[in-house]
Amino acid sequence: MEIIRSVNTIQKKINTIIGRNEQIGFVATMGFFHAGHISLMKQAIKENDIVVTSIFVNPLQFGPGEDYDQYPRDEDRDIQLAEQSGVDILFVPDVKDMYPKTMHINMSINERVNVLCGRSRPGHFDGVITVLSKLFNILRPDRTYFGMKDAQQVAVVDALISDLNFPIEIVGLPTTRENDGLAKSSRNVNLNKNERIQAVWLYKALKKGQEFVIDGEKNPDIIVKKVMDIITKQTTGTIDYVELLSYPDLKPVSVIDQQVVLATAVYFEHARLIDNLLFDEKGNLINVFKQGEI
Amino acid sequence: MEIIRSVNTIQKKINTIIGRNEQIGFVATMGFFHAGHISLMKQAIKENDIVVTSIFVNPLQFGPGEDYDQYPRDEDRDIQLAEQSGVDILFVPDVKDMYPKTMHINMSINERVNVLCGRSRPGHFDGVITVLSKLFNILRPDRTYFGMKDAQQVAVVDALISDLNFPIEIVGLPTTRENDGLAKSSRNVNLNKNERIQAVWLYKALKKGQEFVIDGEKNPDIIVKKVMDIITKQTTGTIDYVELLSYPDLKPVSVIDQQVVLATAVYFEHARLIDNLLFDEKGNLINVFKQGEI
Repeated sequence: MEIIRSVNTIQKKINTIIGRNEQIGFVATMGFFHAGHISLMKQAIKENDIVVTSIFVNPLQFGPGEDYDQYPRDEDRDIQLAEQSGVDILFVPDVKDMYPKTMHINMSINERVNVLCGRSRPGHFDGVITVLSKLFNILRPDRTYFGMKDAQQVAVVDALISDLNFPIEIVGLPTTRENDGLAKSSRNVNLNKNERIQAVWLYKALKKGQEFVIDGEKNPDIIVKKVMDIITKQTTGTIDYVELLSYPDLKPVSVIDQQVVLATAVYFEHARLIDNLLFDEKGNLINVFKQGEI
Repeated sequence: MEIIRSVNTIQKKINTIIGRNEQIGFVATMGFFHAGHISLMKQAIKENDIVVTSIFVNPLQFGPGEDYDQYPRDEDRDIQLAEQSGVDILFVPDVKDMYPKTMHINMSINERVNVLCGRSRPGHFDGVITVLSKLFNILRPDRTYFGMKDAQQVAVVDALISDLNFPIEIVGLPTTRENDGLAKSSRNVNLNKNERIQAVWLYKALKKGQEFVIDGEKNPDIIVKKVMDIITKQTTGTIDYVELLSYPDLKPVSVIDQQVVLATAVYFEHARLIDNLLFDEKGNLINVFKQGEI
């Protein structure tokens, strides 16, 4: 595996790869890899000639008071894990190379953001689309891989690719789960023993919600209410939100007649957990979200 | 010459071209070609394997009350001229294909715009960078060509390419001029006989300004004053602006110690004319502006 830290160097490398007509798969990360990241890399390896993983903790997507400085970093471990996974190039630019001067161009997104986790992070997704536009132009991938755990991020990147005609296919891969069903997250270690047992009820409650749709329920309010009731009853956590929205548009629906996401965020004492399920109007689970052509 | 009207079709065509490792030169236009456009196409043909010219009157860059509907169009003539010039592909998308739905992503630029012509066209360059981002992603050129007649537009596109890391070289080519020196423009036909004779004084005044710099004048205010005096004395036009700014940053300078643009806009009865000269701190003319690597 090649480790490249300079924008200029990797641009030349990408020129060579494209000159050989090889297809590039790209996994954008902020490092501190867990099983979710690895599954993205492995899928990218299956579908492309060359896989580039980037590690860049993007200051632009952290608000004032958010944890940019405290964001966990472990580059040595990440390098080892990426190499073991079969990644070809690890791109680790520093902030000065990515943002050499104050940006003159500003990007913002005004849909798909004022719901779910975006509601409490104003400007967060503006930073995400800016850094991804830069990374897409630097790395020129054919396909880019994200985890559906952050379904809203996938919806935002989908809007970016579609609105600005990036010639990139976006692939949203299923959330990686523990044996009992809990979505994997670096934050799970912050749960105490009791909370860890309860936490699986986020997933179980969403599954229940999905089952109601399979059984013919079309009213999103009823589904949301049932999911909330289960989480409230089965956990000591405090619900941030349970929402059922069209996907990837992330608009409220009055009746479930299209592809939707059922998502929740719950505060435990030292961890805020999120989870979601994507399914069609009949309740059939959608595992992989794909948009765009090559 | 191939005429392509669909985004989808040209994306496939571009895939084929890139697969053959051919370099693409791109000339973005709003059509109604004059000698300036043709000179861009001809230079692009010299420097690339394939030249794509786009004709797209971009609604996003026209403000309310501006002349989007009245913007001159003559597609048959443009097709003929592009073909004669040796263009390989003429891309003529329609508005619905470029903007199939309301955009979720917004782009704006907050530097290099509140000076020169940008001052009186708020939002204009936001529309320019949005459509160019789309066209760059659709056409994936190696080089893109603009006329230095609109030096501010070149500065804005330079910021776009640099901030978002588009792997594209921008080439700003010298203003095409009439025999007497008047910058070529579709609007020159709107001058009456007397005005047409006077109009050359925009160029002559800018040349005089440049000569003062060659002679050692370092004070931008003095240069601007001299240029204004000449235009006022020699024409019946009303000066919109004469400005001397750093280039491509377009910032005011207190002393001429770097590359600058000396630019003017003058209202005549039925035409507003613009012109500019780009030169270094010693007054040496810079004919071609180039930024970015391939």
